[in-house]
Amino acid sequence: MKILITAGGTTEPIDTVRGITNFATGKLGKITAEHFLEAGDDVIFFAGQTALIPKPHKRLTIFRISDTQMLYQMMETWVPKVDAVIHSMAVSDYRPVYMTGIDHFPQSLDLKTLLEYRPEKKENKISSKAPYQVMLLEKTPKIISQVKKWHPKVILVGFKLLSGVSQAHLIDIAQQKGRESRADFIVANDLTQVTKEKHRALILDHKQNIVAQLETKDAIAKEIVRKTHEKSHE
Amino acid sequence: MKILITAGGTTEPIDTVRGITNFATGKLGKITAEHFLEAGDDVIFFAGQTALIPKPHKRLTIFRISDTQMLYQMMETWVPKVDAVIHSMAVSDYRPVYMTGIDHFPQSLDLKTLLEYRPEKKENKISSKAPYQVMLLEKTPKIISQVKKWHPKVILVGFKLLSGVSQAHLIDIAQQKGRESRADFIVANDLTQVTKEKHRALILDHKQNIVAQLETKDAIAKEIVRKTHEKSHE
Repeated sequence: MKILITAGGTTEPIDTVRGITNFATGKLGKITAEHFLEAGDDVIFFAGQTALIPKPHKRLTIFRISDTQMLYQMMETWVPKVDAVIHSMAVSDYRPVYMTGIDHFPQSLDLKTLLEYRPEKKENKISSKAPYQVMLLEKTPKIISQVKKWHPKVILVGFKLLSGVSQAHLIDIAQQKGRESRADFIVANDLTQVTKEKHRALILDHKQNIVAQLETKDAIAKEIVRKTHEKSHE
Repeated sequence: MKILITAGGTTEPIDTVRGITNFATGKLGKITAEHFLEAGDDVIFFAGQTALIPKPHKRLTIFRISDTQMLYQMMETWVPKVDAVIHSMAVSDYRPVYMTGIDHFPQSLDLKTLLEYRPEKKENKISSKAPYQVMLLEKTPKIISQVKKWHPKVILVGFKLLSGVSQAHLIDIAQQKGRESRADFIVANDLTQVTKEKHRALILDHKQNIVAQLETKDAIAKEIVRKTHEKSHE
């Protein structure tokens, strides 16, 4: 099979030297790629700028991804060419529209002004005189919701990471993501249950049933490979 | 001599999974560290989370630095223990105070409200429903200005990076930084004159005179080592 794996986090530029980034290391994606390669599959690996990458392999191709826009374009190109998408990358939900010192702001401020304000010229590197800066951020397009539109028959594994929530809430949100993205599987996990040694995760199928409960990154990766292969034989 | 080198960029957390980061790779700092080690000096190396680090060496100690606050505390501890500080790290000028969906904002908004607003409870991971988010950022303390207060006799090398400015403006701003921080040397450079092969930089001394003009990272690193050793013999 030909597998597209996304891992790590996107980085949304603020100016030429700064950006908003996700702390995701891409370790789970890396391990998953290595298990797919071991099983004989071809892997296209989309890695965030600072993400860990798999060991070199003749059936592995790596692309570095910067921001959500680049990820969108790259996935639009590659999703139709693969059999399965393991979308573990932490994609920025928001990207900066502007950032400006409050001393540049118009005197009279309201919500409309805040949303419609744009700095006179886009600064290459935002200067650092004002005591406060204000940043406006806009929602990025939901890439995972496009995957089945780009390639209806592709097997899609999505991920939902929350932080410090109840298991019931995590399952609820993961099910919602599964419905919205029409993913075949959703890996649901909670940041507070991820340590160096352990990584607790649930896997939900397209009927929103819990079909696996795992305790380590290696076990999650192996299960993703197994479920993807099973699904391809249906 | 005992040299403290800071390199890479700081990362200011927005929530548990996101942060504002600087794209600095720390490559110049890494090369500078290696030249000091070659010259027989001891090096304490403060590296940003994703910064490049020097090859292992018995006279090299590496610490990973997350945000400006951690850098401040670590420098307060270490600066009095060293003979020279090469402060090449790109330190965030601003850090997030809050980020919130505009749907959470009070109906009537003005600048005072914007500055004084705080989300009801600090969210672990900011949710992603609102079409826009607003982030307020506050200025971080100028760490370089503290160095000579913590250790008046330490040799201090500061850095000024601008983007797409005239050489006259770059020198002007670098001189200003030199005066404010009482640095012995300021390395002034412009992002548009940094490529993979080339890295143009000027070095200014404490009298604000240009004492070197370099064209590569390796040449800059060697010159920093030379100037630091010379200064220690004055």
